[in-house]
Amino acid sequence: MNLLINNIGQLVTVASHGKRVKTGEEMRSLGVLSDASLLIENGIIAKIAKKDELTPPEDFDVIDAEGRTVLPGFVDSHTHTVFAGTRENEFAMRAEGKSYQEIAEAGGGIISTMRATREASKKDLYHLAERRLDDMMRYGTTTVEIKSGYGLSPEAEIKILEVIHDLQRDHYATVVGTFLGAHAFPPEYKDDKQGYVDRICDYMMPYIAEKKLATFVDVFCEQGYFDLHFTEQIILEAKRHGLIPKLHADQLNAFGAVELGAKHNAISVDHLEKTNESGIAALKNSQTIATVLPGCSLFLNHPYAPARAIIDAGIPLVLATDFNPGSQMSYSMQMMLTLACTQMRMTPEEAITAATFNGAAALGLSAEIGSIEIGKQADVVIYDVHDYRFIPYHYGMNHVWKVVKNGVMLEF
Amino acid sequence: MNLLINNIGQLVTVASHGKRVKTGEEMRSLGVLSDASLLIENGIIAKIAKKDELTPPEDFDVIDAEGRTVLPGFVDSHTHTVFAGTRENEFAMRAEGKSYQEIAEAGGGIISTMRATREASKKDLYHLAERRLDDMMRYGTTTVEIKSGYGLSPEAEIKILEVIHDLQRDHYATVVGTFLGAHAFPPEYKDDKQGYVDRICDYMMPYIAEKKLATFVDVFCEQGYFDLHFTEQIILEAKRHGLIPKLHADQLNAFGAVELGAKHNAISVDHLEKTNESGIAALKNSQTIATVLPGCSLFLNHPYAPARAIIDAGIPLVLATDFNPGSQMSYSMQMMLTLACTQMRMTPEEAITAATFNGAAALGLSAEIGSIEIGKQADVVIYDVHDYRFIPYHYGMNHVWKVVKNGVMLEF
Repeated sequence: MNLLINNIGQLVTVASHGKRVKTGEEMRSLGVLSDASLLIENGIIAKIAKKDELTPPEDFDVIDAEGRTVLPGFVDSHTHTVFAGTRENEFAMRAEGKSYQEIAEAGGGIISTMRATREASKKDLYHLAERRLDDMMRYGTTTVEIKSGYGLSPEAEIKILEVIHDLQRDHYATVVGTFLGAHAFPPEYKDDKQGYVDRICDYMMPYIAEKKLATFVDVFCEQGYFDLHFTEQIILEAKRHGLIPKLHADQLNAFGAVELGAKHNAISVDHLEKTNESGIAALKNSQTIATVLPGCSLFLNHPYAPARAIIDAGIPLVLATDFNPGSQMSYSMQMMLTLACTQMRMTPEEAITAATFNGAAALGLSAEIGSIEIGKQADVVIYDVHDYRFIPYHYGMNHVWKVVKNGVMLEF
Repeated sequence: MNLLINNIGQLVTVASHGKRVKTGEEMRSLGVLSDASLLIENGIIAKIAKKDELTPPEDFDVIDAEGRTVLPGFVDSHTHTVFAGTRENEFAMRAEGKSYQEIAEAGGGIISTMRATREASKKDLYHLAERRLDDMMRYGTTTVEIKSGYGLSPEAEIKILEVIHDLQRDHYATVVGTFLGAHAFPPEYKDDKQGYVDRICDYMMPYIAEKKLATFVDVFCEQGYFDLHFTEQIILEAKRHGLIPKLHADQLNAFGAVELGAKHNAISVDHLEKTNESGIAALKNSQTIATVLPGCSLFLNHPYAPARAIIDAGIPLVLATDFNPGSQMSYSMQMMLTLACTQMRMTPEEAITAATFNGAAALGLSAEIGSIEIGKQADVVIYDVHDYRFIPYHYGMNHVWKVVKNGVMLEF
């Protein structure tokens, strides 16, 4: 918990100077200090200085970073990390050109993950997710939002949220829970969509709110899934219970999901592959954060979200993985930086801000994490590179050298 | 050199049954054996059997693969691994929307790598490339073709080829050298292109052939670089010296480069982003292999090569990284599998064949490496996955558990 990191080649602070979230030109300002050192006391960033200037108190561990680069830990604000079963078979079918319908008929799609997740024990789900979180930390992520959504029944959704809750308690990573009962319609309700939405609002949500099993409520707002009417019902009910709404919006069609999220002050609207000028205008006049998930576009060979236009409009932008077994099987935030820079014309600076400080803002945590500033939680990652731009530039590999979480240097 | 790998969950042999290269449906046939074991004697694959069936002779090491997946080592048949300097600055400028011209004016482009490489000592170039080869092996690649081409003067090109030659002698990886003096025109010859081509043919090539510093001769055949006339001159001269021609073809424009390669029996034509029906027809009537480099398309946000059409036409296809500091800063063949499956509609089976056995064929080595068959060199990689399709499916990370090169289990 007490640690001096000396001889840092580039200390990328992403300094926020008290802002909640960064927009526009601020996203390009990383506050990089050369030849620096960092003193961490009781898990909190205590001092930032030039290298060799700080003398650590007794009983402090000292790391020589040997000129390496230090960044805040990544904040992955959109994942589906708790699930059983994997879908490599479906991946192969898609590569062969099989349609969504053919994949579903062969037992694929979200319902296959729902079945495996319903069947899995809490213990198994916990251990699967624990291993994934370990790997995420190895790749530089120190905070992870995790959604439910592969249960789609009260028992199974609550089982998943309890697993997320246990991970929050036990795991080194900071874990934030989101209730996504409205991820798809379960087979039991395929002819009674209103019935399922009512079940979410009247039965699941009160219990989840009372037991404090989630911070956020999310909805897959999409044509053929949860339409604007259903989505609004869930958002309003979430707010009534003191849960914060966020949305899956505009992934496949732009039909007003982003506008609905902005109207109700959703903390973020995520995906945005199809977001158009109307959505951008709505976000501009709101407090809602725009979260883009470029891994999903790569994985499904879909268009990318208009991240450039969103940033240029002055809207705060976040990068996250969307890690899930169906449409985005990667939890590497380093890879997301590369996709942001090569596919969405974001600069390395914007991408890093979007993956750290702004990600923290999308979870309501930017006062505590997401940047390296005095008084903040010491979640810092040392990369074996001489320049932060190397992280998106040299892709497909892991550049992490050491991970420090809450001031503790982790051993993998 | 003597090793038994037992308890292999999936042994992906990519068995070739004596063919030089695989085409069409053969590319989908991986020859996967479940619950297998593999006996390696003196660095050669000696026996393949069901698990627990083989009793190793005395003094054999035994590895329990614990149900993991074994593949032939990747053969990366197109790289530019020997260079000094990196170009993360240029990467950032491209993300900002700067043009090629603006980047060149800011000191970027291939000439910047040429300058750094000319200035570097042989020893420095060796150590830089050695570290990269170590990393490539950690990511599952056991054979690497390396091109010269950042010297662009007799002294500097020969310096690079000598480094490649030393790596070939010293490194655990199998290294194959290619002379790419015709990578760009050096500043000294910018007004005398014919003069530089003559210098390659009349001065550099005879020396390189005599000293056996390369197996292949490559040309960047492109409008504004080495046109069809220059390229043909170099190909003919290469053949006269017993060097095997290969080409960079159709990366930016389709103007007959693939057709020229096919006409002269180039061992492979590489890139093919712009290859059209005429190019495909020419390849169909030739022995020339088509090599696609999807990492380059991702990195530059350029179109992908028509891999699907090439395979469907019955032409043998190879996947390689094109690892280089300007247009493709990744040496992960695992990542190339993902790009092949998601961006080019190749199946996982086709991608693995293209990255192993067919890659070996593109280097004239498919009788010795590229598949796991009795009598072949024991270059095998154990992945920590339960199904080979997991390797392209779960991307942005390294799935390698152990690397066995020439029967030796490597420690990293």
